[in-house]
Parts: sequence; C-alpha cells; structure tokens
Amino acid sequence: MDILRGERLSEFSDEAANYTSSIDSDKFLVSPTIKINKAHILMLVKKGIIDQREGFSCIKALEEIPKEMEMDPKLEDVHMNVEALVVKEVGENIGGQLNLAKSRNDQVATAIRMTLREFILDISSAIIRLREAILQKCKEHLDTVMPGYTHLQHAQPVTLAHHLLAHHDSLMRDEERLTGVYERVNLSPMGACALATTGFEIDRVMVSELLGFDGLVENSIDAVSTRDFAVEAISNLAILMTDLSRFAEELIFWSSHEFSIVEMPDEYASTSSIMPQKKNPVVVELVRAKTSNVYGNLLASLSILKALPYSYNLDLQELTHHIWDACQTALSTLDIFAHMLKKMKFNTKRLLELAQSEMSTATELADTIVRELGIPFRTAHRIVGLLVRRALADDKSLDRVVKEDLDGIVKATTRKGIHIPNEAKQKALDTIENVKIRSVRGGPSPKEVARMLKQRSNALKNYNWVSKKREALKISHDRLAEEISKLKEVVDV
Amino acid sequence: MDILRGERLSEFSDEAANYTSSIDSDKFLVSPTIKINKAHILMLVKKGIIDQREGFSCIKALEEIPKEMEMDPKLEDVHMNVEALVVKEVGENIGGQLNLAKSRNDQVATAIRMTLREFILDISSAIIRLREAILQKCKEHLDTVMPGYTHLQHAQPVTLAHHLLAHHDSLMRDEERLTGVYERVNLSPMGACALATTGFEIDRVMVSELLGFDGLVENSIDAVSTRDFAVEAISNLAILMTDLSRFAEELIFWSSHEFSIVEMPDEYASTSSIMPQKKNPVVVELVRAKTSNVYGNLLASLSILKALPYSYNLDLQELTHHIWDACQTALSTLDIFAHMLKKMKFNTKRLLELAQSEMSTATELADTIVRELGIPFRTAHRIVGLLVRRALADDKSLDRVVKEDLDGIVKATTRKGIHIPNEAKQKALDTIENVKIRSVRGGPSPKEVARMLKQRSNALKNYNWVSKKREALKISHDRLAEEISKLKEVVDV
Amino acid sequence: MDILRGERLSEFSDEAANYTSSIDSDKFLVSPTIKINKAHILMLVKKGIIDQREGFSCIKALEEIPKEMEMDPKLEDVHMNVEALVVKEVGENIGGQLNLAKSRNDQVATAIRMTLREFILDISSAIIRLREAILQKCKEHLDTVMPGYTHLQHAQPVTLAHHLLAHHDSLMRDEERLTGVYERVNLSPMGACALATTGFEIDRVMVSELLGFDGLVENSIDAVSTRDFAVEAISNLAILMTDLSRFAEELIFWSSHEFSIVEMPDEYASTSSIMPQKKNPVVVELVRAKTSNVYGNLLASLSILKALPYSYNLDLQELTHHIWDACQTALSTLDIFAHMLKKMKFNTKRLLELAQSEMSTATELADTIVRELGIPFRTAHRIVGLLVRRALADDKSLDRVVKEDLDGIVKATTRKGIHIPNEAKQKALDTIENVKIRSVRGGPSPKEVARMLKQRSNALKNYNWVSKKREALKISHDRLAEEISKLKEVVDV
Amino acid sequence: MDILRGERLSEFSDEAANYTSSIDSDKFLVSPTIKINKAHILMLVKKGIIDQREGFSCIKALEEIPKEMEMDPKLEDVHMNVEALVVKEVGENIGGQLNLAKSRNDQVATAIRMTLREFILDISSAIIRLREAILQKCKEHLDTVMPGYTHLQHAQPVTLAHHLLAHHDSLMRDEERLTGVYERVNLSPMGACALATTGFEIDRVMVSELLGFDGLVENSIDAVSTRDFAVEAISNLAILMTDLSRFAEELIFWSSHEFSIVEMPDEYASTSSIMPQKKNPVVVELVRAKTSNVYGNLLASLSILKALPYSYNLDLQELTHHIWDACQTALSTLDIFAHMLKKMKFNTKRLLELAQSEMSTATELADTIVRELGIPFRTAHRIVGLLVRRALADDKSLDRVVKEDLDGIVKATTRKGIHIPNEAKQKALDTIENVKIRSVRGGPSPKEVARMLKQRSNALKNYNWVSKKREALKISHDRLAEEISKLKEVVDV
Repeated sequence: MDILRGERLSEFSDEAANYTSSIDSDKFLVSPTIKINKAHILMLVKKGIIDQREGFSCIKALEEIPKEMEMDPKLEDVHMNVEALVVKEVGENIGGQLNLAKSRNDQVATAIRMTLREFILDISSAIIRLREAILQKCKEHLDTVMPGYTHLQHAQPVTLAHHLLAHHDSLMRDEERLTGVYERVNLSPMGACALATTGFEIDRVMVSELLGFDGLVENSIDAVSTRDFAVEAISNLAILMTDLSRFAEELIFWSSHEFSIVEMPDEYASTSSIMPQKKNPVVVELVRAKTSNVYGNLLASLSILKALPYSYNLDLQELTHHIWDACQTALSTLDIFAHMLKKMKFNTKRLLELAQSEMSTATELADTIVRELGIPFRTAHRIVGLLVRRALADDKSLDRVVKEDLDGIVKATTRKGIHIPNEAKQKALDTIENVKIRSVRGGPSPKEVARMLKQRSNALKNYNWVSKKREALKISHDRLAEEISKLKEVVDV
Repeated sequence: MDILRGERLSEFSDEAANYTSSIDSDKFLVSPTIKINKAHILMLVKKGIIDQREGFSCIKALEEIPKEMEMDPKLEDVHMNVEALVVKEVGENIGGQLNLAKSRNDQVATAIRMTLREFILDISSAIIRLREAILQKCKEHLDTVMPGYTHLQHAQPVTLAHHLLAHHDSLMRDEERLTGVYERVNLSPMGACALATTGFEIDRVMVSELLGFDGLVENSIDAVSTRDFAVEAISNLAILMTDLSRFAEELIFWSSHEFSIVEMPDEYASTSSIMPQKKNPVVVELVRAKTSNVYGNLLASLSILKALPYSYNLDLQELTHHIWDACQTALSTLDIFAHMLKKMKFNTKRLLELAQSEMSTATELADTIVRELGIPFRTAHRIVGLLVRRALADDKSLDRVVKEDLDGIVKATTRKGIHIPNEAKQKALDTIENVKIRSVRGGPSPKEVARMLKQRSNALKNYNWVSKKREALKISHDRLAEEISKLKEVVDV
Repeated sequence: MDILRGERLSEFSDEAANYTSSIDSDKFLVSPTIKINKAHILMLVKKGIIDQREGFSCIKALEEIPKEMEMDPKLEDVHMNVEALVVKEVGENIGGQLNLAKSRNDQVATAIRMTLREFILDISSAIIRLREAILQKCKEHLDTVMPGYTHLQHAQPVTLAHHLLAHHDSLMRDEERLTGVYERVNLSPMGACALATTGFEIDRVMVSELLGFDGLVENSIDAVSTRDFAVEAISNLAILMTDLSRFAEELIFWSSHEFSIVEMPDEYASTSSIMPQKKNPVVVELVRAKTSNVYGNLLASLSILKALPYSYNLDLQELTHHIWDACQTALSTLDIFAHMLKKMKFNTKRLLELAQSEMSTATELADTIVRELGIPFRTAHRIVGLLVRRALADDKSLDRVVKEDLDGIVKATTRKGIHIPNEAKQKALDTIENVKIRSVRGGPSPKEVARMLKQRSNALKNYNWVSKKREALKISHDRLAEEISKLKEVVDV
Repeated sequence: MDILRGERLSEFSDEAANYTSSIDSDKFLVSPTIKINKAHILMLVKKGIIDQREGFSCIKALEEIPKEMEMDPKLEDVHMNVEALVVKEVGENIGGQLNLAKSRNDQVATAIRMTLREFILDISSAIIRLREAILQKCKEHLDTVMPGYTHLQHAQPVTLAHHLLAHHDSLMRDEERLTGVYERVNLSPMGACALATTGFEIDRVMVSELLGFDGLVENSIDAVSTRDFAVEAISNLAILMTDLSRFAEELIFWSSHEFSIVEMPDEYASTSSIMPQKKNPVVVELVRAKTSNVYGNLLASLSILKALPYSYNLDLQELTHHIWDACQTALSTLDIFAHMLKKMKFNTKRLLELAQSEMSTATELADTIVRELGIPFRTAHRIVGLLVRRALADDKSLDRVVKEDLDGIVKATTRKGIHIPNEAKQKALDTIENVKIRSVRGGPSPKEVARMLKQRSNALKNYNWVSKKREALKISHDRLAEEISKLKEVVDV
C-alpha cells in the first residue's frame, strides 16, 4: 500500500504521478534530505519524543541510503522515497516515526536552502577565481593603450588594464550581493511542519544548529510559504550573467576580423562543418545566450510566486528546478570564462593602431584650448567640432587640420589673435600622452590603474568569506556526526 | 582525428565540449536529421552530383542508425554524430560526401521545423480532445445555474455550461492560432547551406517536397538566421497555457471548502504527508505553475534573439530546448486536463444555492424597473443600489427589501406614485428566470447555450485540419521511401 | 452625487481613485467609446427598447463630446466620464439610458479592439513602407559584394542586396502574422454586458456591423474575460521588434570605426557633450533598447492574465497600457527606420575589401577539390583546413598557400598524384566569382537576387490588405452616420 | 546654434529628436542634476580650475532654475537643457564652462543614483508603516482562530495574527534587502566624465562628499557603464510586489461571498456600472496586476543590459524610466495597502466557523494516537486517513466517526486492544485547543504569537535606518549650501 495516500485516496493515475513528480529536481535534495532526517530524529530522541533505540535505527537506515539513490516517481518526491527506503529497511514500526513532527513542507524548504547555500559558496569561489584571472590580465596590459568606446565609437584612449578592471569591479559587486543573499538563505524552516508547527515539544533551534543554519525562519506559516530567498538568489545570478554577457559580447566583437583585437584559444573555439577556415568564438556566444536562460528562470520563478496564497501550494515545486538551472549556468559559465580568459591573446599592436586611427584625442584638444586660451569649454568643444568636420570633409587627419586650421578657427570664433603653443598641441594629440595625464582617481593612467590593481589584489589575498562560511558548516556537520556517535554508544550499551 | 575540426584547430577542451554541446535537446532531432540526410543524398544523386552507388550506400547506412542512437558530446551535436556513424559504416570515401552542399546551419533549422510541426499537430489534436471533454460537460450542465463572477464577486446568474463554454471558445482560438504558426513553420531552409547556398546545382524544391514542406524559406541568409517561427510557436503556447491557467485557478478555488463546487477525482489529487484529511488539487496547481515555465521559455527565446546579428550564431542553439520544453508542457497539460475534467464532479446543488444566496438578480431588478416604470437605467441602478444598501444594513434578503421598500424608494426618487406589478418583481428576483430570459446571442439561457453547443459539436465533427496535414506528410514520406526503393533497384542491377 | 456609486457605497478615497484610475490609457479609447455609445443607442432605438427622441438626444450629446475631452479620475474611466458628460448635457432622464443593456465590461473590450485594429493597420502600413525602403537599397546594391557572417566571422561572400533582402523577408512574415491577429481582434464583444448579456432583446449583430466588426465574440463570458487577442498582438510586435533589433545591431557595428561599412545620416545621429569628434548611432541604439520595452509589455501582460479567474477582473485594466505602449513603440520604430535607411550610405569599396581580406572562399575551394578530384567532401574540407592553418601560421594569403602547397597536401592525403587545373583554382579563390556561381534558389548571385527582388516588388505593388480593411471600416462608419441621419429626419418631423 | 551638435553634425531630425528624447523620465533628474552642477562647479573653483567669480555666476544661475523647468526635447535631455538655461542666463563665456571636466555619462549615472536613493528611503519608510499596520491588526486578532491553508485546502487551525505576521515577516526581509541595495546605489560616478576621467586635476571625492555619497564607483569605465544597482533595486521591488500580491490575492478570495472573511472598506472598493449590488475589491486587484508591471520593468531592464558592450550606450537611457515606474508602483502600493488594511474588518465568527467546519484537527488526532498508543506516526496517519474516508463516505463529522469507529480501526490495524482516553480524543478534536498547544517557536499559539509580536514591535520602535541615512544626506546638503555661501562672501568682497 502507498505509504502516503494510505487509506485516504484511491490510487494516483500514472499520468498524474508523472505530471506532478519532482524527482528530476529532487536529485539535488537527496543528501540534505537525509541529513535533515538525521538531525530531526536526533532532536526527537534528545527531547524524549521517540525512543533512543528506534531513533538510532532510523539514523542507521538513513546512513545507508546511497547519495545516488533511485527514486520512484509514484512516491512523488525525495521525501517519500527516503521514508519508503527507511521503512523498507527497519519496518514501519520504527521507520514510520520518520515524519513525526515534521512535514514535506518544512523539509523541502530546508533542503533547498541547504543545497542553495552550497551553490552560493561555489559560485562565490568561482567569481573570485575569475577576478584573479582578470587581474592577472590587467597586470600584463597596464600599458596597452586601446580606444575606449562609447556607443561603440572610439571615444577617448584608455588601456586594456583599465577596461578589464571595469569588468573586475562589476564582479566584485556581484560577489558582494551574494553574501547578502546567503544571510537570508541560511535560515532554518524546520519545525514549521505543514504550516503550524506541532503539538510535540520539539526544539527548532537544536535542529537548525545541527544543520549549520545561522537562525530560524521563525513564523511557521512564513517558513513554508516563502521562496523570496530563491528569487533573490536567481535575480542576483541574472545580474551576474548580465555582467558576463557584456564582457562576452565585447570578446565576440573583438575576435571578428574587423576588430582583430583578441585571439580565442583553440580549445574554446570551434570550426564549421562546411567552411574549413572558420574559427568561431562559440563559448562566449553561449555565455551570451545562456544569460537569457537565467532571465527565463527568474521570470518563471517570479510568475510562479505571484498571487500565490499562503501557505504551501504545489506551485512552489515548479520553482525549484529554476534555482538549480540558474546556479549551474552561473557556475559553469564563471569557470569556463576564467580558464578561457587565461589563454586569450590580446593583440596589443592592433589596439594601439586603433587607438591612434580615429580622433579620440579630440576631448583633450578641447580641454587644452580651454587651458591655454582661457575660453569656455563649450566654445572649445565647438571649435574642435569644426576641426573634426573639416578633417572628415577633406579626408585629413586631425593632426593635420589642427596644424593647418586651428589658429584661424580660433580667431574667427573668438575674434582674438591668440595662439596655442605647438608643444601643447602635440601633447593634446598624442594618444599615449592622453592616457598618462588621466591620472585622476579611477582613471586610465598606468600609475592609477596600477594602484587600483594592487588594492584589488590585496583584497583578494585577504578574502576569506567563503572559507569562513565553509568552516562554520563543517563544524555543525561534525557536531551532528559526533552526536550520532554518542547516541550509538548509548544504544550499543 | 576529429572529423569536424580536421586540421584547422587543435583539440577542443572537455569543458568547452560540455559547455557547448547540444546533445540533450538534439535527441528530438535524430529522426528528422537522418531523414534530411536521406532526402539530400537522393537529390544529389538525382542531380548527378554524386554517384548513385555511393549515394545509396550512404542512405543504407543512414537507415541503420537507431532512433535512440548514443551521441558523443565531443562531436558537438546530432549532425556530426550522424555523419560520424555513416563514415564509420561506409568509410570516409563515401560517407565523407554526406555534408556536400549542405551545412549544419540549414540542416538544424530544417530538423527543428520538422519536429516542431509534429508537436503542433499533436498539440492541436490534444486541444480538440480537451474541447470535446468540455463540450461533454457542457451538455450535462445546460441547466445547472451558478453565480457568474466578476471581480470574484457574484455578478449575475449564469449556467455551468455557459461558463465552461467560455473556456472552450478560448481554446478554439488557441487552436486557430496554431494553424497560422504551422504555415510559417512548415517551410524548408535546406539548401541554404552555411548561409550562401552552394556552387553545386542542387534542387532545393525537390528536397523540400521529399521532406513534406509546403515551400521554402527562400533567401538563404534568412533561412539560417531566423527563429521567428519558433518564438511565434512558443508565444502561442504561452497564450494557450495562460488560458488553461485561468481555468485551473477556478478549479483550485472551486475545490476549496468554501466554494465546494467541484470534487476532484482521486486519481488527480494527492494527500499530505502529515495531514491525513487533505485532498490537494495538485494537478491543477501544476497547470498554473507550469504556465510560468512557458513564460520563461518565451522570454528566454526572445532575449536570445534580441540584437543577434545575421546569420547563424551559436546562441540559436540555446533557443532549441525552450521549444521542446514549451511543447512538452503544453501537450502533457492538455492531455491531463482532458482526462481529469471527464472525471470531475460538479456540485449542482451547491451551485444553485450560491447563485441564490447573493443579490445577483439586482441587475434584472433594475432593468425591470426601467421597463415597468419607464425611468432611465441610471436612476433604476441608483434605486436598486439603495435597496441593496438597506438589505445589507438590516441584514435582510433582497426579496424582502423589494417587498417592503421598493415602492417607497421609487416614490421618493421619482416623486411619482408608480408601482411595479408583483409578478414582474417576482420574475426579476427569480434566479432561474434571470438565466432563462438572457437568451440574447451568446447569453446563458439554456436554449441559447444548447444552440452554441450544437454548433461547436458540429464543428468538431467536421474538424480535419490535423488529419489533412498528417496525410500530406505521409504522402511525402512514402514518396521518399519509394524514390529510395527505385534507387536501390537501379543500384542493385 | 456620484453617478456610479450611487447609493451603494460611501465615497471612494482620493488615493484609491488615483490608484485605480485608467484615465491615462483611456485617452486611446475616447473616440471608440463615443462611437460604441452611438451604435448601441441606435440599436436600442431600432429594437424599440428606447424612445426615438430620447435616443437621438443622447446621440447628439455624444457627437458634441470633444475627442480631447478632459477626464475626471474620480469617475474612474472613460466610460463613466462619457456618460457623465451626456447626462450633464441632456439630463439624467434621457442620458441615464446610456448604460441600458450594456456595461463597462463589454464596452471597454470593444473599444480596445477598435483602437487596436487601427494600430494594426497603421503598423502594417509602416512595415510595407520599410519593406519598400529595403527593396530600394537592395536594387542599388545587387553587385555590392560583402562578407557573409556566421558567428560574426567571415563565412562566405554574399552581396549587400542578398543580406538586406533577408531582413525584408522577415518583415514579410511579421506583416503576415498581423493579418492573422487582425482576424481575432476584429470581433465584437458588445452585448455581453457585464458578463451575461441582458434580458432586453438587443441585437448584437447590428451593433457589431455598425462598428465595422467582422463578427462576434459570441459567448458573453468569454467576450468580457479574454484578452488573448491583445497578448497575441503584443507578442507579434515583440517578434517584429526582435527582427528590427537584429538589423539595428548590425548597423551599430557597421558604423563602428572597425567595420566602417555604413555612414549614418547626420539627422539620425548625435554627438557627445564632451567629445566633439563623436557621431553616435543613437537611433539604432534605441531601436535595440526599445525592443526590450516591448518584451516588458509582453511579459507583464501574460503575467497579468495568468491564473485570472473568469470573468472580468480589474487586473485587465492594467493590461491596456501595455498594448498602446507596444503599438506606439513598433509604429515609431518602423517609421524612423525607413526614413533613416533611405539616407544611409553603404561603403561598397570597404565591403569588397573586407570580403576579400579573409579566407571566405575556402568552402568553394573545398567544393572545387571535390568536383575536380572526385574525393569526398569531408576529405576536401580537411585538406583546406590544413591550408588555412598553414596560411595563418606563416602569415600568408590563402591564394599563396594554394599555389604553393595544395598539390603537395592533396598528394599526401590521397596518395594520388592528381592536380587541379590552375583556372579552376583561380575561380574558386575569386570572391566575386564565388558570389556569381551561387545562383541556386535563394542564393547570393546577382541574377537570383534580382529575380527575388522583382517578385517582392510586384508583391508590394499588388499589396492591398490594409486598404481593403480600411475600406470595410469606412463603409460601416458611413452606414452608422447614415442611420443617424435617418433617425434625425424621423425625429425632426 | 545647437549648443551640443555645434559644428560637428547637421541638424537632428524632429523625428529623431522625439524618438531619442529622454525628457519624460528626466523630470525625476532635474533637481539632482542642478545639485551635481553646483557641487562640480564648486569643486572646480576650489581646485583652481575655473575662476571664482565665473563659478559663482554659474551656481547662481543654477539656483534660479525652477524645479518644474520646461524641457525642450530638441536638446535631448535634462543635462543639455540645464546647460542651455545657464548659458542663456550668464552667457556662453561663463556658462560654457559648465561641462568642463564632466560629461552627461557620469552626470546621468550620478543623478539617477541620487533620485533612486531617495526612492529607496521613501519605500523603506512605507514598508515600515505597512508593517506597523499589520502588527496592529495582529494585536487585535491574537485569539482569532482560522483555518490555516495549504493548497487552498484547510490544513490545520492557526490564528489570524499568526497568519498576518507571516506577511509582516516577509516585508521585514524586503526592507532588509533594500538596505543592501542602498549601499551599492549610494556611490558616486562623478568625475568619470565620458568614460576616461579628465586631464584636469579634479577631486572626485570632494564632489562625492558634497553630494552625500558614501564612496566612489572608482573605475571610470565601470562608473558610466554599469546599471547593476538599478536592476538590483528593481528586482528587489519585484520581490516586494510579489509578496504584496500574495497578500492581495488572499484578500480577494477572502472578500468573496464564499469565504466572507473580510469586509473591504467602502473607500477602497468600487461598484459596477450595471450591477448595483456589486462591491468590488478593486484596490487589491490592482495590487495583484501592478506586480506584473514591475516584472515587466525588471525584465526589460535586464534585457536592455544584456550583451551591451562597455562603456556608455544610449540603450541605458531606456532603462531609466523602468526604475521610476517600479519605484512609484511599489511606493503607492505600500501606502494604499497600509491605509486600506487599517480599515478592513475581519469576520472573526466566520473564521472560527470555517476552522471548525473541516477536518483540520486530523493531524493532531494522528499525533495523539502516536502519543497515547505508542504506534508509529505513519500508522497513525493511515488510521486517521481511514476515519476521514469513512466520514466523507457516510457524510458524518470527524468527531462522530472518531467516537464510533476509532477503536475498531485501531484494533484492526494494530491487532491490539488498546484505547485512547476520551479526554485525549476530545482535546485532539478541539480546534481552539489545537492552536493553543502549538506553542513551539514560531507556532500559532496566542502566547507564542504575542511573544513574536512584542519582539517585532520593539524592533520597529528602535528602527532608525532611514532617519540615519536621511540625516547623513542632510549634513552633506547643508555643507554644500555652506560652501556656496562662503564662495559668495569671497566673491562679493
């Protein structure tokens, strides 16, 4: 007989069993579910609610369940599969206590939080590794001058280190956000039972601590109803992937023939089944595309929760796989991005050539006019605009029209016979010089970027958030094992 | 050696192979890919581009590939796996011709369209079956009076048949939309090759016809770049699921204790692991939740395509699994909905009781005042509003305040001593009568609903869109087989 | 006193009035709402439900309402504002009949459909104009050879006409889809009243015809509940915008210094407030960004409808502005795109230079090896891969390694001393020749593209869907005016 | 002449000006833009980059700009409009310095952050007020027993205070999340200029402090490229709205005739234009629907950012109005929800009646069997399942079948003649008793809920995050004013 439906309902149709089964996404929950059961039984024993020997038998049976256990969809989910295995092992007389003073509603919320916190730690570590890879590239390219782009047009010269560091800094915030999520994830719903706790005198705090949580989701209705923590996690992963997609897009452009800025490592490129000359940046294309998948995960999750009355509804089950999808996508993307980046080759010669080919020193030229002639910026901006127009019309370089036409235009505009020293003109038009003098806080000058790099490198050296969290989890893990050992001793006597 | 990368690129990393592999969603493409290869080879033979014997050997090798073939992720996708199997079977000298004058880019677009058209036909059939199930329920409940709701408040009495028919009619449009999609799906990209067709004198129309397409996606760049047909299909499935979610939502609260309107069949309900009395409408909950998944599929697909330059980019690969997800969700939901609906029991007594319990005849009362007293509707609306307010304040029924207060209020409002005959009052306040007199086109009166039912039933009887499409596909399928037989004969001689 | 709340409810709070008011999006509904009222009153008169003179007074009052009428948010929406104006004009004794046998629920659904059908016709016309602009550019660039891209890498040479035509063809389908939507939009809900029709013997078909509809949304519950037609429209606009965003993306990087393929017209570009040399392709950037806005409209609309029980709920009101937003975005984008495209200048010299600069003739070289030496494609693909690798390693052109190394590699690979005639080699490596020989249906050869162009141009010349629809609307519009004239005559007597 | 395009570009088309203008969403940026200009000019003066008198003239002109200033769309945005006004006031010779060493790119990012931080503070305050309103209701309903729902089915009895507190607690986390966002919002991009800082020796920290920021977005490319802070804010508002939508959905159900649990205040309900008896919970319907609008804002924002190369692109402009939309929706929803909730009346009699009407004590009965008979939970669960089935089949109450059948079933199941004392049975079946004994941490017992209430009330009393942040902003605001006064004195001398 079906341990769950018992005598209450006639048999579930196969079709309904398949339609409603959560077995696929529950594979991420096997290990935490077993652990929760162990902690829960231990608590029941310690509180004198169930017998020591029976409790220990249950725990022993739980410990024998393989992590890769086969699940029967007819039993709906991991929770009933685990219970069925225990009952099979030790009989219903003992195993039938497993669900005393708990429910699938609190248990699944707890298990999801346990798996998600591991993912958050893994993803945080992966962000750190990618940041390290970026900083390494920055160190190699402190002096690599390149065009800075706005609107995909050359704007002003910067360096590759400066540019890559911008990506690093957005990852810094992505990681920071995850630490906030972790705080709201690592809270225990256990003991909320179906929604109203229980009449048995359980100890929710004990279970929470044995499972490594930092506190409770206190109100029991809230505990089983909310998935805000999951949506928050997914939305932060969506932002992370968005940041990566922007970097990926640049790499796609940069590996085009027209840009020729970057050479993708062979190991991360593919060719064509028909065009033998092709070398396609497939990995970064998929970084871009998989970002959209995470948007899908986010939107689906929000839409599942919208207008869902309290407390537990089965709709929540459909949200779970979106968490795993988003986490796996983020994790694998971060990893491959870091490996790939390390092997990428940037064409520094081409970058300088590009930086010098357009008129990206025009701003500095306008600034120089302001400084040298004491005329307002907007007037200088207009004067340079005129030079640019003339350069384009006559197909001349900016340098040449400056030499030929600047003084005349200044005179015509300001009606004063004032001149800019040639040296100042030259400096303004020198791409490398343009970069050097932008030594303001956060600017592209190699000196300032070197300072920022050092500061970030030191921060990474001192980074220990993940290891501290892992240590805390380890301590609670060990304590649970120890308590079980103690129980074993007591029982064995 | 890697048949694809050949001598061009050094080896793909395992990580990149896993990250970029489309093997999972390609399992839906095995059968069409094999068929496309057969049709393509046949065309090459007929056009004299490859040798008859060699062509036939390829086709024979293709026919031996099992539909459940194992795929190696290192070979990236189904296309290279199929080619590798053929080469293994007949050697590269012959099998190496398989990709002559075609590419993965046109082939995958073609295969997706072939699988999707089957899904559309299956889903259309499933819609028809659900519509039949609804019409059957309508027939049983022509006279089942129930409260019609607006804002989830009782508005005016209708019948269950009338209400269910509204859901039927939205499914009618859902199906209609799919026939439009089918027209744009069932077009052949084959022969576009990578993006620019080929210098070989292939016959795109011949291949298209052998594969059952109704025409070409003519421009070869368009043919490999577009996935509009897929997004269109998914968006229509999102609308379909939305319609089902609205029906599902009603069934969820109709099966609540408070409504007690419907009894879910045991086979489609589950109980609780902790609360033995529970009977949860889990299937309809998941219909609701899975709707959000399709929104996720839709949004991810749109976002993948947004701002994607022409022609083929690997991003398109990530779109494919969203098509299959959406199709499978829609198909399984339609099927289970039809089966479940057939076994649902509606509580007709409760429905009538609810219809009579609130003041849902108030509109008819106002209309009657207009008719009987010749005063304008807005005034009558206000008079009835006053009656309602008094009924609520004094906790009386509408019937009673009509009897006690109507004449007085009319007098006070109109300053005329006019009366409504008692019979007219009674009729206006009679719930069943209210339904009967609403016999306007599309209204709830049993007579009018019966007329609509008959019209819809006849339409379903004459429905043959799916069978006609299937027949057309069958004819082309047979023709391909026949052509291969003929080739066999020629070769065997 | 509040004409709507009458005696039923005490006063609405200002806060609630503001929160729930739909005045903003109702400005699109003023004109259809007035027209619906006229047709409805006319029908009531003709059916003898209201007095001729009173009916005519209402109609006259309706005709005096200015299209830009001021709306009072306290009256919730356009419907109550119109009624209030009429009542103010002709008194409640007459104007109070305006809402007899109808409701805001059917009226708003009807008005939305009337405005939306106009938008669909406008958008379809705008698509046609953009298609014309594209075809014009195609005509100018039949022989403009350019690199065809896959994965943003040079793949095979095509022509600009061939490439632009791909965009044209996707717009062709976008327009086709809208004609399907129109069929489902142009159906009349009028007469459904709140949800259950009415006890008055109204004629729904008469109203439908007077308003230019092609039929009814028959079931009255369906008529007021569904917004599937709106979501369908928005989703098709989302696909349309997606197609435009892909074109826009290409224009953004084609106007970069690195590509230098296109020169944006000054009128559609902006400069920088700080960098005087900048010329930013701002319009196409916003085409790209506004596409996302339509995704937001689509998703919000779906999410509003999800799990919304029948029949009318106020949630539907929040959907309406998403329709107008999406329509306005699509319409303005199509218009500006067409105008901008006409003035764009493509750099044909640069395009040819790019087409010749990479090894995009490699496929044709492999095909030639197949043809000339009778070896299988996969082997030829590998031979060319080897040549490409050598060219890259030694920094030589493909032409040169073909000359120097091809025969040797063929010999090493096939172990046969076979040769390809020099003429065939030359032809294979000639970019322009590559384009010419791809004359397969849908291919880039100027001849084939010219054929396609002619076919599309003819199709546009014969295009009359919009004008036919507009004519049908005009006829019904005139008939309504005529019927009102007749009534005037009768009344004036 | 156009101050912006100057001599560089010929005139912008009207169409392009309208298409690209951000005037609408810029109205939120007027005040911060003026302030930024003042702080920037002050810094330039203090750093000796511009003349004191000229600087002061600019500041004076800035102070005269009205907050409701008219903006000309031809000038593209608020930045150029402000500059134009200043130039108009003091001439280009002085006003033309306004954009020296800054750009629209850093300025707009800064202004958005300044407006957003105000919204975050306002929204946080509104959350606090709604939490207070909920806690007040909780205090009134500590003993109001109601059915706790899972799957919208009666599960176990809880109290209204317990249930409402669950909503409070989710708002607690919503507020917590916003404090994290604030940290990442309140950082200054100023001084990044277009993307590469400037050659002038500006002081970014001084400007940051004068504007009340807590630090810099240091890397200048990052500073103008990122909008992660905005998406983070919107995603948190989407979660907040989701939480409110769940509460709203319950209130919609609860105000139905069938539930009759809550009476909406008239001021927050509307009636029907046709059905005079209707009282529609329109505000909560719109809370539900507007939640979807915020999803639209979120998705559109993510999709705008996806794959957007660094640094500034005009796409970012389209993201801005989504921020304001989401903030305004959240703010107005929180406010109206709090006001409405205060006036809602809960029907305590009906709640108790519902709690007692179904078999929601079944879990406690099973627990009692476990306790009293020492049999395992799963067996007890099955026994109660059998009782439930019998009660349903025979249409008896659970009380009655317990009395009649429990002992027999226990005997049949356990094959032991064991009995449960009548008193224990009675207690298990008593709804109010069920609630009382669930006094575990977070459970529904009035004592435990009172404890939680007290803790939350105290927390609110001590809440000062918003006031501390406002104070910090006030201090910097005053300092800016003071510095300007000082400059005035110097200049006036």
